Amino acid sequence: MKKVSIKDVAKEAGVSISTVSRVVNNSAYVKEELRVKVEKAIKKLNYNPNIIAQSLRKGKTKSIGFVIPDITNPFFPNIVKGVEDYLKKEGYTLLLSNSDQDLDMEIKIINTFISKHIDGIIFTGTGLYNPLLEKVIVKGTKIVFLDRILEGVNASYVICDNEYGILELLKYLYSRGIRSFYFVNGNENTFSAKIRYEAFIKFMKEKNIEDYKHIFTNFSYEAGYNFGKNIKKIPQAIIGGNDLIAYGISDSLQERGINVPEDVSVTGFDDILFSKHYKPALTTVRQPIYEMGYKAAELMLKIINGKQNKIKGIILKPQLIIRNSTI
Amino acid sequence: MKKVSIKDVAKEAGVSISTVSRVVNNSAYVKEELRVKVEKAIKKLNYNPNIIAQSLRKGKTKSIGFVIPDITNPFFPNIVKGVEDYLKKEGYTLLLSNSDQDLDMEIKIINTFISKHIDGIIFTGTGLYNPLLEKVIVKGTKIVFLDRILEGVNASYVICDNEYGILELLKYLYSRGIRSFYFVNGNENTFSAKIRYEAFIKFMKEKNIEDYKHIFTNFSYEAGYNFGKNIKKIPQAIIGGNDLIAYGISDSLQERGINVPEDVSVTGFDDILFSKHYKPALTTVRQPIYEMGYKAAELMLKIINGKQNKIKGIILKPQLIIRNSTI
Repeated sequence: MKKVSIKDVAKEAGVSISTVSRVVNNSAYVKEELRVKVEKAIKKLNYNPNIIAQSLRKGKTKSIGFVIPDITNPFFPNIVKGVEDYLKKEGYTLLLSNSDQDLDMEIKIINTFISKHIDGIIFTGTGLYNPLLEKVIVKGTKIVFLDRILEGVNASYVICDNEYGILELLKYLYSRGIRSFYFVNGNENTFSAKIRYEAFIKFMKEKNIEDYKHIFTNFSYEAGYNFGKNIKKIPQAIIGGNDLIAYGISDSLQERGINVPEDVSVTGFDDILFSKHYKPALTTVRQPIYEMGYKAAELMLKIINGKQNKIKGIILKPQLIIRNSTI
Repeated sequence: MKKVSIKDVAKEAGVSISTVSRVVNNSAYVKEELRVKVEKAIKKLNYNPNIIAQSLRKGKTKSIGFVIPDITNPFFPNIVKGVEDYLKKEGYTLLLSNSDQDLDMEIKIINTFISKHIDGIIFTGTGLYNPLLEKVIVKGTKIVFLDRILEGVNASYVICDNEYGILELLKYLYSRGIRSFYFVNGNENTFSAKIRYEAFIKFMKEKNIEDYKHIFTNFSYEAGYNFGKNIKKIPQAIIGGNDLIAYGISDSLQERGINVPEDVSVTGFDDILFSKHYKPALTTVRQPIYEMGYKAAELMLKIINGKQNKIKGIILKPQLIIRNSTI
């Protein structure tokens, strides 16, 4: 079947091609009766204006690339939903790609996105310094960092206040009389893990707590499980770097007959879907995950539309959620 | 900064523009030494060939649209990962959009995808008949249905053998002496829910079981929770339409002092990430979720490349996973 062209629409409507173009692009005034005729013809012929070709002329494809580490990590679906909901509302399309925490893959994805003439990139990368990012920013590609800031790369960002979150949690545990801590943190290269580590050490020093330990692992159930299986001296509280780590710790301790929270308090970070249903229900720090995605998309479109010309950082507040995994 | 053009590359490499074009598009033989020169120049100048403009000429954008109901439903991240992993491997990009189980939104998304000249659409829709799908198929848009077949729409698909899965589960429960069943199914409009309902009824009739009930709810934790909170007469087994429903049932029953599996066996469907960590660990039917996505992308690219000209249906086998929520 032949593709319907702008010529066909003009013929059907009995108007000139330029009138159809003006209606489609909303680029100039068209008399109401002509507009109605054109719209009827478009509907009848099911005409799809060639938006990509148009976009190339206008320099906008109305599409945004989003680089994430891994959609199967339960932290990311809500962020993606937030991004997509805002973009869709504004008539933009989302290109999504998983980097699998691999710097080479990140670079490949960014190059692909640029070759597809996306209008901007929302970036939640490995956390490693990526030399390509500086280059593409200098060349004019719009970037918003999400859930991380990369050292040496000057761009707008949306993050959660990780320091505030971990301090709220520690203050609460301290108020419950807890004086010995083990922080089983996530990947060392990750922005959020670094910030939380620094805040943890700061709190221990401030309160003159000497009985504390810290270890970087990775943000997975298995990392927590292995930790819990092997830990010898049990502290009063174990802080998981995220909810998955906390589940793993809690499960392996309970398999060893060590009860949560009676023998040890265990906490998470994120408050993913399952944490309220976990047994025991998990005390954790809720990140405004969906909102982070939504705000990043909003900021991106402001930048694209010239309404945000300076570098802008948005920092969202997390919230302490107290449940049954702590005394 | 000025964008690097094909002319700049030709000048840098000391070759003609058509030689650069032949290297970039891999469209004709180029002497090895010239190819090396061009590749060096491309690297040095960080040249990005204008793939969209090229694609418009060739009729391919190397992008695939994927419509899903909701990425925050834990069934979907793995499917999306499977699709994206295959597409990326083949140099294709994924456009992702959530329809939120809304038919009008589905139609809007499909129209957007088509206006962006995607090469094909992978479709996991509401399950409601969508009149636009027939139209776009007739007009030549390539479609692969994933996790469902739509009545009256003739297109290739990848599904899981839902009948086999539910029958394996029922046979196992029957072998354990269970003779009374309540099936708390998901959304009535969903392809998989319908197939499982029919298989359930068939099994009950075959085994002459009279003590059985069935209800359509929706695929959520809350649906299962409300069911478990209110059910009066407890059967020997409650079949959840998916793992989320099963969690909800199990939690609310246990809150009422009804023990799983001692008082009632509870089962799920899908085997999402948490089901093995659930307490009690959930007996369920594992769908090959990642593989379904991967195979759908593979089938799509075969169709696009003219290697699959007839309608093709791929049916993957699920697997019974026996854990602690059943006697």
